[in-house]
Amino acid sequence: MTYYTFPENTLRAFTENVFLKMGCSEEHAQLAADVLIKSDLRGIDSHGVARLSGYVRLWQKNRINPKPNIRIVHETPTTATIDGDAGLGLVVAPFAMKIAIEKAKTYGSGWVAIRNSNHFGIAGYHALMAVEQEMIGFAMTNASPLVAPTFSNERLLGTNPMCYAFPAGKYPPVVADLATSAAANGKLEIAQRSGKDVPDGWIQDGNGQSSLDPHELKKGGSLLPLGSDREHGSHKGFALSAAVDILSAVLSGANYGPWVPPFVAFLEPPTDPVGLGIGHFLGAMRVDGFRPIEEFKSHMDNWISRFKSASTISDEQKVIIPGEPELEAEQERKVSGIPIIDVVVKDLNVLAEMLGLKSLEY
Amino acid sequence: MTYYTFPENTLRAFTENVFLKMGCSEEHAQLAADVLIKSDLRGIDSHGVARLSGYVRLWQKNRINPKPNIRIVHETPTTATIDGDAGLGLVVAPFAMKIAIEKAKTYGSGWVAIRNSNHFGIAGYHALMAVEQEMIGFAMTNASPLVAPTFSNERLLGTNPMCYAFPAGKYPPVVADLATSAAANGKLEIAQRSGKDVPDGWIQDGNGQSSLDPHELKKGGSLLPLGSDREHGSHKGFALSAAVDILSAVLSGANYGPWVPPFVAFLEPPTDPVGLGIGHFLGAMRVDGFRPIEEFKSHMDNWISRFKSASTISDEQKVIIPGEPELEAEQERKVSGIPIIDVVVKDLNVLAEMLGLKSLEY
Repeated sequence: MTYYTFPENTLRAFTENVFLKMGCSEEHAQLAADVLIKSDLRGIDSHGVARLSGYVRLWQKNRINPKPNIRIVHETPTTATIDGDAGLGLVVAPFAMKIAIEKAKTYGSGWVAIRNSNHFGIAGYHALMAVEQEMIGFAMTNASPLVAPTFSNERLLGTNPMCYAFPAGKYPPVVADLATSAAANGKLEIAQRSGKDVPDGWIQDGNGQSSLDPHELKKGGSLLPLGSDREHGSHKGFALSAAVDILSAVLSGANYGPWVPPFVAFLEPPTDPVGLGIGHFLGAMRVDGFRPIEEFKSHMDNWISRFKSASTISDEQKVIIPGEPELEAEQERKVSGIPIIDVVVKDLNVLAEMLGLKSLEY
Repeated sequence: MTYYTFPENTLRAFTENVFLKMGCSEEHAQLAADVLIKSDLRGIDSHGVARLSGYVRLWQKNRINPKPNIRIVHETPTTATIDGDAGLGLVVAPFAMKIAIEKAKTYGSGWVAIRNSNHFGIAGYHALMAVEQEMIGFAMTNASPLVAPTFSNERLLGTNPMCYAFPAGKYPPVVADLATSAAANGKLEIAQRSGKDVPDGWIQDGNGQSSLDPHELKKGGSLLPLGSDREHGSHKGFALSAAVDILSAVLSGANYGPWVPPFVAFLEPPTDPVGLGIGHFLGAMRVDGFRPIEEFKSHMDNWISRFKSASTISDEQKVIIPGEPELEAEQERKVSGIPIIDVVVKDLNVLAEMLGLKSLEY
């Protein structure tokens, strides 16, 4: 595998131009690019520009609306339901998070369920919008079905991530951002590219038997919930994933479970939808709705410091605070650039040619 | 192992009398008994009357206040912090949940962080209080440290459960109520009593090496987070547990991480507390803050029905909807009584003698 490294701004400009070519407004193109580049900066390569061609292909099939009329369809002082008008989740989710934050400013907390959206990038981007306002941020989304519930061999749930983000004082925010499956799809892609087996407990074949083949999903297999099997708590991963699906979609009026439209353009959405698009659920709570922010931050620092100094099993390991590796990647990549694997660079340049854009030089 | 079966009301009356002997008010004794009996009814034997002597022993050490002045110490329209005045979590948490529900009635959602509390029983009890009001209920609590973060051999977190409860229509509520560890402590106790090994991935010894010994925690071992090891996502279980700890305690002003006081009276609390007692976090959101309740319920029924009819790996298994086994146990035990294991019956009768109460006949 070969990687080419690009300065952040080169990739950002390229990505913005792609979204502009799709017909997005300047504002939306900038925002969507910001969400994707943030993911690449934070080292979550599977959710950054690697997904750009996927968005374009969905747009070509009229499954993404580049000029959405995102609007509130239901509201109380602290809750709202948003219709994303089939727009990019990358712009729909930040729109919704702003509403959650405004409600929290006035009432202490704000909660927004979103329907008729698309893939929203990394959950952490949206949750961190709240952290910037000294709030606690929550973000979750459902996703196209790849995960089987405990005891089933049917793909009924997405990797349905949930994110909790907390401001701290001298330390960076704690960001718990996790897929509720044993392994995220991006990890499978890495194994596919390297031609390696995956660990037992990540996937099962179409008959529900354990499989180590990272290509198993193309043959009718499925990802397993966090916990992997019943004995190790896969019913808990299933329950968490179910909660994400219900909050994101049953509550908002989006598609849920096996009805969630696929993220890839070559698979058609179900012909019997139960809602509109995919769903997200976002929230913000003011820290000072519970205790003074400086007190909270000082105890967050104490929490982080205590966990960072925990005794470890081996000298080479340390306890990793959730969100810490992503921030370290961000700081490093802002300086030294973003490494992109060759297949993705080629994919982006195919896109450039198709859209009449200047290709990435490497 | 021998079980004796008691009618619900026999155990309820016995439990109420124990709490009255501790000096609880009639109202508090009834409520605390209701939380414990609900747990036994729902088949979560580890959190029911089996814990009664534990509460009494903490009260004898002046670590539980039977006449707490539970009060709001901080508030916005939709958020509040409650000081439980070292009361039973069994009464403090329902007090707090009522406040969350009242706030949700007026503003759409309500969120309450609780400090200076004790063990609150099953999270599901509190979350289901919201469901009875056609709301979505959330409940979590931190707990005395038994779980090591990924890569550590130190017990820094409790089994920190989180619960999401959703109303449905013709089906019972979906209740995702789970410890964020690979196995709950109750499962270890079952293995201890039966003298059996536990599965690999539940616990590690004091050096962080895998152990199958259910008694390992008494020798310096620790429980593992949901996911069991890094490869299978234990960093996700750790991140969820961290989120529970922060929301329950850093936000409320309770003790967190290794400072959480032990639930057992023979272990002394840390001498350098960072807050007051243990912490909980509870919330309620009105479903009709997002979409009409009947629409939501009808889609919940569709969700449940689809998952219940999922194809299964073997004919003997079915997909279990979160909360379904607990409700089935409740319906059955309300009729046929609650089976209590002999060691617990003996423990309760020791309690009866100590407190001058009529013992349980069996």
